[in-house]
Amino acid sequence: MSKSLIVQKYGGTSVGTLERIEHVADRIVKARKTGVDIVVVVSAMAGETDKLLKMARSLSKNPARREVDMLLSSGERISAALLALALQSRGIPALSMTGRQIGLQTDSTHTRARITSIDAQRARKMLNKNHVIVVAGFQGINEEGDVTTLGRGGSDTSAVALAVALGAKQCEIYTDVDGVYTSDPRMVPQAKKLDVVSYDEMLEMASLGAKVLQIRCVEFAHKYKMPLVVKSSFKEKEGGKGTLICEEDPKMEQPVVSGIMCDKNQAKITLKEVPDQPGIAANIFEPLAAASISVDMIIQNVSEQGHTDLSFTLAREELDEAMVIMNKVGKKIQATQVSSNAKIAKLSIVGAGMRSHSGVAAQIFKTLSAHKVNILMISTSEIKVSCIIEQKNSKLAANALHDAFKLEGKTAKKKTAKIVSPAKK
Amino acid sequence: MSKSLIVQKYGGTSVGTLERIEHVADRIVKARKTGVDIVVVVSAMAGETDKLLKMARSLSKNPARREVDMLLSSGERISAALLALALQSRGIPALSMTGRQIGLQTDSTHTRARITSIDAQRARKMLNKNHVIVVAGFQGINEEGDVTTLGRGGSDTSAVALAVALGAKQCEIYTDVDGVYTSDPRMVPQAKKLDVVSYDEMLEMASLGAKVLQIRCVEFAHKYKMPLVVKSSFKEKEGGKGTLICEEDPKMEQPVVSGIMCDKNQAKITLKEVPDQPGIAANIFEPLAAASISVDMIIQNVSEQGHTDLSFTLAREELDEAMVIMNKVGKKIQATQVSSNAKIAKLSIVGAGMRSHSGVAAQIFKTLSAHKVNILMISTSEIKVSCIIEQKNSKLAANALHDAFKLEGKTAKKKTAKIVSPAKK
Repeated sequence: MSKSLIVQKYGGTSVGTLERIEHVADRIVKARKTGVDIVVVVSAMAGETDKLLKMARSLSKNPARREVDMLLSSGERISAALLALALQSRGIPALSMTGRQIGLQTDSTHTRARITSIDAQRARKMLNKNHVIVVAGFQGINEEGDVTTLGRGGSDTSAVALAVALGAKQCEIYTDVDGVYTSDPRMVPQAKKLDVVSYDEMLEMASLGAKVLQIRCVEFAHKYKMPLVVKSSFKEKEGGKGTLICEEDPKMEQPVVSGIMCDKNQAKITLKEVPDQPGIAANIFEPLAAASISVDMIIQNVSEQGHTDLSFTLAREELDEAMVIMNKVGKKIQATQVSSNAKIAKLSIVGAGMRSHSGVAAQIFKTLSAHKVNILMISTSEIKVSCIIEQKNSKLAANALHDAFKLEGKTAKKKTAKIVSPAKK
Repeated sequence: MSKSLIVQKYGGTSVGTLERIEHVADRIVKARKTGVDIVVVVSAMAGETDKLLKMARSLSKNPARREVDMLLSSGERISAALLALALQSRGIPALSMTGRQIGLQTDSTHTRARITSIDAQRARKMLNKNHVIVVAGFQGINEEGDVTTLGRGGSDTSAVALAVALGAKQCEIYTDVDGVYTSDPRMVPQAKKLDVVSYDEMLEMASLGAKVLQIRCVEFAHKYKMPLVVKSSFKEKEGGKGTLICEEDPKMEQPVVSGIMCDKNQAKITLKEVPDQPGIAANIFEPLAAASISVDMIIQNVSEQGHTDLSFTLAREELDEAMVIMNKVGKKIQATQVSSNAKIAKLSIVGAGMRSHSGVAAQIFKTLSAHKVNILMISTSEIKVSCIIEQKNSKLAANALHDAFKLEGKTAKKKTAKIVSPAKK
């Protein structure tokens, strides 16, 4: 192919009605006029997947994952065929393709399969014939020829994987927000859209609850250095450049802090006066792992008289199940108390610039202290600081830190426009 | 396989709601207890196919058939997966399979593809593992791996083809009526259900508008001598034996007449004073064939002074298009008049016993004449007599013939029970 190729992915709300499908088709016609080849990846029409899942659950308490995949995969086929028709009626040669037809091979882990290979030979052939390819996202087939799905947000992953397989210039993710923000605007009214974010930062943000992109999709893009763009697919916001997720540019100075995330879906379990012996941690965390419960932060206090207090956090919806397990474990290892707290939040500050800037943590502690926000637990990585705080303080704390790191719209632009937005003009 | 196999096909209304799917699952559980292997073929949930088609048409005036197939094939996948789940939740090992997975290969005539082969290896393997296979009907794939559909009533054809490929004992078609009737009960209140019908009779009935089975499915069953059973899938009518469609049993005497069909969806075109020359018929019918308009009956009167009147019938929905063509043709061949009549009906009397009984046509003419019903056109085959009559006479004529041939419930049973129902007990 001599022309450059762009992969565009449209989420469920972007293809949620026939009218929106027409709008997406118009957008593709426009993009095509700039002289690029286009592969489109679509999700199921909004609400379709939930409707199908509800039907499955009403027929079976524990529906077999293979059948769920067969069922759900139909949603993306429908939107792919409809979008292909909308394109054809605009005079654009278009072809819908299923996961199988696009050659997307996966392992056999139904409902959350991993991509093992892509053989995009046919897609390439049709691109050479000047076609727009409309791919049903979220799905592939395993070695047996059974339909598999890639799990929540799987269409994003399909899109990135295809972009890599086809050597696309970039992969554009169209959604109902116009980019990645410094913080959740519902929580921090001053939050502003970021023009550029590094893969590392985006990965931290995604794992901290920024829902705009799935971790897997960012990991995939990172691994193969595929530039990702997050944009709004809605007319009123058209023309926006969205957010570019790419490699850190070492020639540019990074903003110290790029975003502040707040995850309220957190809970904490504390075991008091645990005997401080080798193997105790295994006694505690192995039963949780066996029950597929993910533990996030773990804190063990300094040992006193051979005993220590141990706390850890986890997703709130897993608290009840974890407490049942911990009450048993507590008895076995002779902890004096097992308690839980579901009224906490995890506030995280992410920024690739932290690598070269010291004092970020100190600034966070100073700011929170000035607002009388107590920090219950702390965890840090190279480009992230996370604090567990009381949930009632989360809004106050997020706004205070957003101010302290000068992330808000106008002020930030004035002072750090060049630094924040290396890709801007 | 040592166990005998039955293929059951459930139509759209039979799987139209989750409740009905549960009911179908119960029915399969019951059938399985009799010790047979079962393969189930399902249609899309009632209304689903029309909903999808409507969406396609709203996006494209002339939707590409390949995309329509991709779109429509999703409906059967959904009902297959749902039924498999309902079976699994009843403790029955079940597996849904698409047209591709069942190995149903077709040609590339999208929206009305022909089956070219079936490689049911995987289905056979799973049957040996004691599974119920739930197949998405109506669909297959072509050589390129594109999804194809088999056209209206295609799921019936899928079912018969699978029954043949798997060596089933019989193929049961579950629908919303409890069998094949001597006539349409809405038109002839005395109509009764037939216990047995021969393939030949059923073919005539299907082509004459009996909607219970598609011609193709009966042809397929006939070709491979696969016994077909038409039954109701609804609870209130359970226990009914339905109608068996099989080979004529030469040892049994056939009833002279099995059924009376009336097709009101007919129209007639007449060309007056057409020059009676070689090649004229081609001049008339070739343009119709080119426009894919099927002509049914053709009548050419005796030539008078080198001219003849020519009439033919066709489906009413094609009348307008055909008249445009005929008006042109009429001028070209110098017919003096081109006229049409849409207020006609085709009344057909079908019976394998006609082969050995003379006088059926005479009886028909006598009966209609006694009721002052004028016959406009006549056409006969070995086991059928069709008359075109005025539409307003159709109900009267159908009931008169039903009486004349003693097809009505009680009388018929008394006199000809053994003859009409060779398979009964």
